Amino acid sequence: MRLSTFFMPTSRDDPAEAQIVSHRLMLRAGMIRQASAGIYSWLPLGYRVLRNVERIVREEQDRAGCQEMLMPTIQSADLWRESGRYEGYGKEMLRIEDRHGRDMLYGPTNEEQITEIFSHYIKSYREIPKILYHIQWKFRDEVRPRFGVMRGREFLMKDGYSFDLDYEGARRSYNKMFVSYLRTFARLGLKAIPMEADTGPIGGDLSHEFIILAGTGESEVYCHRALIEQDVLGTDVDYDGDLAPEVARWTEHYAATDEKFDESEAAALGDDLVRARGIEVGHIFYFGTKYSKTMNAAVRGPDDEEIFLEMGSYGIGVSRLVGAIIEASHDDDGIVWPDTVAPFRVGVINLKAGDPKCDDACDSIYRTLRGTGCETLVDDRTLRAGAKFADMDLIGLPWQVIVGPRGIGNGSVELKRRDTGAREEVSIDSALSRLTESAGAGGPAAS
Amino acid sequence: MRLSTFFMPTSRDDPAEAQIVSHRLMLRAGMIRQASAGIYSWLPLGYRVLRNVERIVREEQDRAGCQEMLMPTIQSADLWRESGRYEGYGKEMLRIEDRHGRDMLYGPTNEEQITEIFSHYIKSYREIPKILYHIQWKFRDEVRPRFGVMRGREFLMKDGYSFDLDYEGARRSYNKMFVSYLRTFARLGLKAIPMEADTGPIGGDLSHEFIILAGTGESEVYCHRALIEQDVLGTDVDYDGDLAPEVARWTEHYAATDEKFDESEAAALGDDLVRARGIEVGHIFYFGTKYSKTMNAAVRGPDDEEIFLEMGSYGIGVSRLVGAIIEASHDDDGIVWPDTVAPFRVGVINLKAGDPKCDDACDSIYRTLRGTGCETLVDDRTLRAGAKFADMDLIGLPWQVIVGPRGIGNGSVELKRRDTGAREEVSIDSALSRLTESAGAGGPAAS
Repeated sequence: MRLSTFFMPTSRDDPAEAQIVSHRLMLRAGMIRQASAGIYSWLPLGYRVLRNVERIVREEQDRAGCQEMLMPTIQSADLWRESGRYEGYGKEMLRIEDRHGRDMLYGPTNEEQITEIFSHYIKSYREIPKILYHIQWKFRDEVRPRFGVMRGREFLMKDGYSFDLDYEGARRSYNKMFVSYLRTFARLGLKAIPMEADTGPIGGDLSHEFIILAGTGESEVYCHRALIEQDVLGTDVDYDGDLAPEVARWTEHYAATDEKFDESEAAALGDDLVRARGIEVGHIFYFGTKYSKTMNAAVRGPDDEEIFLEMGSYGIGVSRLVGAIIEASHDDDGIVWPDTVAPFRVGVINLKAGDPKCDDACDSIYRTLRGTGCETLVDDRTLRAGAKFADMDLIGLPWQVIVGPRGIGNGSVELKRRDTGAREEVSIDSALSRLTESAGAGGPAAS
Repeated sequence: MRLSTFFMPTSRDDPAEAQIVSHRLMLRAGMIRQASAGIYSWLPLGYRVLRNVERIVREEQDRAGCQEMLMPTIQSADLWRESGRYEGYGKEMLRIEDRHGRDMLYGPTNEEQITEIFSHYIKSYREIPKILYHIQWKFRDEVRPRFGVMRGREFLMKDGYSFDLDYEGARRSYNKMFVSYLRTFARLGLKAIPMEADTGPIGGDLSHEFIILAGTGESEVYCHRALIEQDVLGTDVDYDGDLAPEVARWTEHYAATDEKFDESEAAALGDDLVRARGIEVGHIFYFGTKYSKTMNAAVRGPDDEEIFLEMGSYGIGVSRLVGAIIEASHDDDGIVWPDTVAPFRVGVINLKAGDPKCDDACDSIYRTLRGTGCETLVDDRTLRAGAKFADMDLIGLPWQVIVGPRGIGNGSVELKRRDTGAREEVSIDSALSRLTESAGAGGPAAS
C-alpha cells in the first residue's frame, strides 16, 4: 500500500477526549473515529489490526476443536424472558421494538440463543461434547462509555459455549479453553495471567479471568513471579489429551485481581510477589445447568434417561484487545505492534519522493516484499523527513526501511526495528532477505 | 472435519415455512436456523460458505484499489437528520432509543456515515480519488421478510463509496466497480448481467443492477444473447487503465428487468433475445453531490476553490448471495456448490465406518488432503449408505470420495463429481492427485 493513496489520517495533536494512551494513540494514528459515544468506525489501518486479532483468535479456537458459526446481533426478547434474564439485565441492554411492536434487543451475550439452537437439534448423548463459538458485534449500553475501544458500547467479542454430559466433561472443555486462551494471548504478543474470578451465585471454582500485564492497565493485580516467567504450550498441544496438569501449572500459584486481593496470602509469597497493572481480556466460566434447566435443554442418555446439558461460556474481547495490546506495547513515540498483529509488517520511508533513484528503489523493495506476501506500506508522500519518521513511529510497524539519496548512491538502506530502535545500514538485498526470513517470527507460540 | 463431531443438523423433511428452493435447501442442509422473522443464525456449514463469499468479494474490492474499513451497525439519528433522510426513510429503518434517550438506528446503509468520516479528514483535492468499503451487517425492518436469507431483515452487505472531484473522475470510479463486480460474480460461479436501473430523482444513466440468471429467480429479465456468452476480464485487468471499452462491451447490448422491459426494443433483437429469470445481487449507483452538498463535504482545489465531492455507492448482498448461488446451482438431490464457495472441497464417505480397512483408508485420505490445504469433510458416522449418499448430495460438495470394503480390498475408491454426477473407480493415489491438482479450479476469472 502507498501512503499517498492510503486513507490513514494521522494527527500530531493529542485528542482532548482521550484519557488513556491506547485511545490517544488509536485516534492519532488514524485507526478509529468515534461515531457516537462508545461507538467507533474502524479506519483502514485500525481495521487491519482488528482483523489480525480476530484471525488469531479464530485459529486458536479451531485448533482447540471449537466450531465456528454466527448468531445475529438482534435477538428476540422472548428468549431472554424464557431464561429469566430479560427484566433483570438492566439498562445496559439495548431494547428495541420492531415495526410490528415485537420486543427485540441487541445481544449483549448469547447464552440463551446458543442454548435454543443447540437443544433444538441435539437430542442424543452421542452428539456430545461440542464447543461452538462465534465472533460477532455485541452492544452494552454503558452509562459512561470511555477509554475508546477498551470500554465501548458496540464491541466485537468472541463468545464460545461448551456442552457436556457431566461435570467431568465440562471440566475437560473448560481446560481446553483455558489452555487455548493462554496460547491465543501469547500469539498476540501478550503475557496473560489466569486469575480466579467470582462465580456469583452458582459457586464452584471454575471461573478465570485472563489478565494481561500493562503498565497503564485499568486495575492492580498480584501474582507469583513464576506465572510471569513460565511459557505457554506450543502448537503441538494435544487438545484431546489430559490438560489438567497444564491447567494446574497455571493455577497452583497465587494470582489475584484487586477485588480478590488478600493481604496475608500475598505476604506469604515474600519476594516472589509481583504487583502490576492489568487489563482483563478474557473470561471463562463454568455454569453447569443454569440455562439448560430453565430452557429445558436436555439430551437422552444411553438408557434413554434425560440429561440436562452442562455448559460453560468463554469470552474474548476482540476489539478491546486492540486497545489492550497498545496499552502493553507502546513508547513515547507511539505504538509498538507485536509482529503477529501489526497492520503492515514493513514500512518503507522514501526520504526524497520524486527523486528517481529513491523512487525506483522504493518501488523495487515494495514489489519484492509484496511478491513474498510481506505486507508493506510505502511512505511516498512529499513531506519533510521528520514528519515521515514521526508517522512511521506512531503507527508502530515492526520494521522500517529508510531509503535516502545518500545511501541509495551505494545501494544501501537503513533497516530499523521499531521495538528495540536498533538501526543498521545494509544493502538492499540484505534488507530484503532479513525481512522475508523473519516473516515467521512471533514468539514460541506462533502457529 | 469429521461428521461424527461436526455440528451439521441435516434433515430429510421439507420445511413448511420455505417457499423457495434455496431457503428449503439451506434449512435441510443445516446451514441456517431462523432466530426471529427474517433473522438467521448461520450454523457451521452455512457460515463456511458465507465466509467464502465474503472473502471473494473482499479480494476483488482490494484488487480494484478499494480500501476496507468498518463502520458500526448502530448510527446516530442526527446524521440522518442532516442528510434529510431520517423522517422519510419509513418503517424499514429500525429506530432505537438508547438509555440516555438519544435517537439511534440500526444502519440500513451508510452514505451519511461515510460522508461524515471522509469529509472530516479529507480537505485537499490531492487526496482524491478514493473508494472506501466495508462488509457489515445491516438491518431493514421488512414488513414481510421471506425467502430465507434472500430477503432477510438482518443481512450482510458490502457497501462501497467513491469520492471524486468531477464527473469524469466519478465515471472512472464507477467503471472500476462495474468491472470489478463482473469479476466478483464470475469467481462466485455466477453469470451476472448488468442491467440499467432507475436512478430516481437524480437522473443520469449511471446506475446498474447486476442480475444473475437462475431458473427460480425472483423476476423476469430480458437480454441480448451476447451478454450471456461473453466472458469477463481475467486477473490481469488493469484498474488504472481505461475501462470504458470494457464497460461498453457490457452496455451496448439490450438488457432489462421486467420493470424496464420495452416490448418493441426487445422484439428488435429477434432470435438474440433471451428471456430468463433473474436475481439482483449487486447495485452500483452514481449520485453526484447529493450527500456532499447537504452534508457540506467539500475539498479545496488547486486554486483553493471549494469542490463538492462527486460520490457513488456500490452494494453487493453478501448473505443474499449464498441463497442466490443455490438458486442458480442445485438439482433434485440438493445444492451443487461452485468450487470457489463450497464449504468443503471434498466429502469422503466411509461406507462401513468401524471396518478397520475403510477407517484407515479414510483417515489416510483425510490427512493427506488436509496436508495440502484441501478442505475435507469425512462422513464417519455409523449410518446406512443411502443416508450418507443423500446427505453428501444435499450439502453439495464439489467432489465425493466413496470408500467401501469391496473397492478398498484392491486399493480403489470411487471418485464422484457432484455437478456432472460423473463417477469413476480409481486408485487412492490417483484420486488424491486429481483432487489436489484441480484445487485451483474455479473458472477463467479465478485469482
